[in-house]
Amino acid sequence: MLSDIEIAQGAKMLPIAEIAAKLNIQNDELEPYGRYKAKLSESIYSRLEGKPDGKLVLVTAINPTPAGEGKTTTTVGLGQGMKKIGKDAIIALREPSLGPVFGIKGGAAGGGYSQVVPMEDINLHFTGDMHAITAANNLLCAIIDNHMQQGNELGIDQRRILFKRCMDMNDRALRNVIVGLGGKVNGVPREDGFQITVASEIMAILCLSSDLADLKRRLGSILVAYNYSGQPVYARDLKVHGAMAALLKDALKPNLVQTLENTPALMHGGPFANIAHGCNSIRATKLGLKLADYCITEAGFGSDLGAEKFLDIKCRFAGLAPSCIVLVATLRALKYNGGVPKAEVAQENVEALKRGLCNLRAHVENMRKYGVPVVVAINRFLTDTDGEIAALADFCRELNVEYALSEVFAKGGDGAVELAQKVVAACEQPAHFRFLYDEKLPVKEKVGIIAREIYGADGIVYTAQAEKMIREIEALGQDKLPICVAKTQYSLSDDPAKLGRPTGFAITVRDVRLSAGAGFIVVLTGDIMTMPGLPKAPAANLIDVDDNGNITGLF
Amino acid sequence: MLSDIEIAQGAKMLPIAEIAAKLNIQNDELEPYGRYKAKLSESIYSRLEGKPDGKLVLVTAINPTPAGEGKTTTTVGLGQGMKKIGKDAIIALREPSLGPVFGIKGGAAGGGYSQVVPMEDINLHFTGDMHAITAANNLLCAIIDNHMQQGNELGIDQRRILFKRCMDMNDRALRNVIVGLGGKVNGVPREDGFQITVASEIMAILCLSSDLADLKRRLGSILVAYNYSGQPVYARDLKVHGAMAALLKDALKPNLVQTLENTPALMHGGPFANIAHGCNSIRATKLGLKLADYCITEAGFGSDLGAEKFLDIKCRFAGLAPSCIVLVATLRALKYNGGVPKAEVAQENVEALKRGLCNLRAHVENMRKYGVPVVVAINRFLTDTDGEIAALADFCRELNVEYALSEVFAKGGDGAVELAQKVVAACEQPAHFRFLYDEKLPVKEKVGIIAREIYGADGIVYTAQAEKMIREIEALGQDKLPICVAKTQYSLSDDPAKLGRPTGFAITVRDVRLSAGAGFIVVLTGDIMTMPGLPKAPAANLIDVDDNGNITGLF
Repeated sequence: MLSDIEIAQGAKMLPIAEIAAKLNIQNDELEPYGRYKAKLSESIYSRLEGKPDGKLVLVTAINPTPAGEGKTTTTVGLGQGMKKIGKDAIIALREPSLGPVFGIKGGAAGGGYSQVVPMEDINLHFTGDMHAITAANNLLCAIIDNHMQQGNELGIDQRRILFKRCMDMNDRALRNVIVGLGGKVNGVPREDGFQITVASEIMAILCLSSDLADLKRRLGSILVAYNYSGQPVYARDLKVHGAMAALLKDALKPNLVQTLENTPALMHGGPFANIAHGCNSIRATKLGLKLADYCITEAGFGSDLGAEKFLDIKCRFAGLAPSCIVLVATLRALKYNGGVPKAEVAQENVEALKRGLCNLRAHVENMRKYGVPVVVAINRFLTDTDGEIAALADFCRELNVEYALSEVFAKGGDGAVELAQKVVAACEQPAHFRFLYDEKLPVKEKVGIIAREIYGADGIVYTAQAEKMIREIEALGQDKLPICVAKTQYSLSDDPAKLGRPTGFAITVRDVRLSAGAGFIVVLTGDIMTMPGLPKAPAANLIDVDDNGNITGLF
Repeated sequence: MLSDIEIAQGAKMLPIAEIAAKLNIQNDELEPYGRYKAKLSESIYSRLEGKPDGKLVLVTAINPTPAGEGKTTTTVGLGQGMKKIGKDAIIALREPSLGPVFGIKGGAAGGGYSQVVPMEDINLHFTGDMHAITAANNLLCAIIDNHMQQGNELGIDQRRILFKRCMDMNDRALRNVIVGLGGKVNGVPREDGFQITVASEIMAILCLSSDLADLKRRLGSILVAYNYSGQPVYARDLKVHGAMAALLKDALKPNLVQTLENTPALMHGGPFANIAHGCNSIRATKLGLKLADYCITEAGFGSDLGAEKFLDIKCRFAGLAPSCIVLVATLRALKYNGGVPKAEVAQENVEALKRGLCNLRAHVENMRKYGVPVVVAINRFLTDTDGEIAALADFCRELNVEYALSEVFAKGGDGAVELAQKVVAACEQPAHFRFLYDEKLPVKEKVGIIAREIYGADGIVYTAQAEKMIREIEALGQDKLPICVAKTQYSLSDDPAKLGRPTGFAITVRDVRLSAGAGFIVVLTGDIMTMPGLPKAPAANLIDVDDNGNITGLF
């Protein structure tokens, strides 16, 4: 089989204006970026305001292996499969970060015959949204340091600056830095650090804003520091949120691209799935619901992280309600959850598979708590055996959950026909979507509901630091916000070694942070890395471009 | 009179495809970025290869006041004026940096009725070239630090890393930093610093590259560090120049925009005029010569810095030869050079003006050394008096140099009719363009020629550090490159207080650096700031965007 980039470069893309025309997007609503990418103008929202929404389909997954379970690929393939059964669908995805492209993970536009294209552009600068976020983030930081340099009227305590610089790069040397060295004209020395751009609160804000006015309000609400009296300093106190919004004005517009089979795809925003909520923008998803009968979107990591936040944060802010949840499972991940080491998950092992099925059961039960029909998508790998697939199918029947084999990596939309049919049928069922918790509850009660209901924990331990932060957030009157848990993606618990469906464990909350601009409270279990590093042999060493501009080595 | 942004927002822009069509640019050569910006595809170069070149006009200036003398405004206005006299012209400008936009200087797209539009887009992210350069620069840095982290096979000496990180922001707190703190997993601690993106060698490389292959070769030739044995480490040794070139593949394509009067303008690249050569890209200028009968371009600061480097570096690398040099002079700058304090230059003072005319004489004489006809453009301000203008006109006649009043700020192209006529006439004269020096001469001889012939110095003092660096560059066999002097723009000497036409002075060379990728040797006289700071009341405080996306406060 060809590599992802070879398949992508062989794609027969349609001019983006043709893709837009099929969606009845008007000429003056399309802002092309090159021939195959476009942004959609603000005016499209008012024109479509009265149109009824299509059905929202969320793609999520069980707890994955470190290689991932093909959630994006399944989302793209399902979108393509909808066309095969005569349905009108659009895909709404996150846009990739440059950092992992040069590191180890590679791109993030699907795989095999279920990719979004132009793959190279999307994985490199795309339409510049990441760069705009980086610029807005670092403008705020420059203004903070300049404020201290120029007399520090607000009394910002350089030991308590919460907002960090960022860069869209995997660069561990920037995790912990000292800035402002070199004497009086060169700033106030202090500790600082860089996050990767997708971990910036600005990214979360962009993805959760309903419009430019809301964006500006949220930017102004970022808690950047405390002053020497212990009072909060917000971005609006520095009078910089207007300039930040000006930098983000185009980034707030959703991007239109297409799949290998010319299915339209909105790619917009991409917040980290740990420190933030991990799904594409509210604006893109809402627009997708106006542009097609089915809008298929995804959320990062497993359903315990991605879907929970999608449902309890994004849907809450946006007034969205999914009609169907697709749960991606692979035999490899089930065997991994059944105790098979990572290196051996490609070998047939029905017993281990059966041991791992408890993980799938937990995710199905969890998603049912939201009142939405679930369909299991078995993302097929070449190494999967019929015996293993039969065991999984038996289990789905026992669970009384719909399922379908998905072969979208190898076959594109043709590999998702059955899945698409099951999804359409599920969307016809009555859905009674409900949130897991009331955001007006106290912080610890909200965390408790998530930990018990979703993770299966029987206790929560708070460190002294976490307790202190909760009291601070309460004192600021900011405790009535949804919870955004940062947790390992490899386990339902906070311990990546506890596979399957762990029981009898407690979650440890080590720290709590307020993302006042984004509008959620981040609850950290364990050390969360917000600036990745590069491996010994980074992908950057393989990436090249020939004299004619053809890129190689992206994957 | 309206503000620049009000005039710009009232512009009747044509769709960029119409501007392109007037230049006979084919549809498949145009890559639109929104409705009023585009990049031009690689294929246009091969199509136009055989077409004869138009005439190249360089706009430069006398030594300026701190407010600048309106070089860009004159360039834009002259381009508009050419249409008024029935000539077919295109403008080739630098693209602005975000940093100064949020600082004190404001945008860089001309002024009054001689601006390039869309002004807000151009001054913010434009087509993403700056961000691509930032990313390529910082990828190289991440790879350097990662190389040390992962075993340091090349033996990079962390005390001798020459290549710095960059950010497109005025941020003094990043001038001197320590990175890699936090223990073993977080990198090797070392001193580092950030430059503003336009000061990055990558920017100079982008502007001096003839094509993608040349770009990649130059990126690979960047001298990034020395190893523990004192041997040079180049970017190609880190196998990262391919990925850097991939990041820059679109940034290498010139950008097409238009003026307020729909004159086409190429804006591409913008290297710092002190640490680098300070003019737009070779590729844009060469393309401009193919697209129109006259290509009007500019170079940073006064002619002693900008024009000298344009002629001796850019023209040398590109095989370009200007047909006319326009020297922008203002009465304000002449009075400033005649000893009037900055705050009083708007008041009539014919005597001071006459004292300052020696500065104009020096610049005219200097430019004549290159064998190219000179036209003085008197950039008129409202406060200029007839008596002062008459004195300047008398002086030009005495010097036997053509001159014209330019009123492009207030009148647009109509204010440049006489200037355009004079320029066209000058272009018909025989030009015998020659470089000032042979680049094969020893470093000190080349510096000596520039210092004597252009600055009027009668001696050069080298610090021990500068002597050492020259020996190192000779040892590397890299001494046969053109010289790029970093010097104050306010004086022909290296002392900003020496106004007019100083004599009897020596230039002090404090340091010498090799830009092996760009292909020149940077000779530093005095402290050169490569990361600006923000003022007490930064422009960022005034910039805002309303709910409909209209930006205010840019200037």
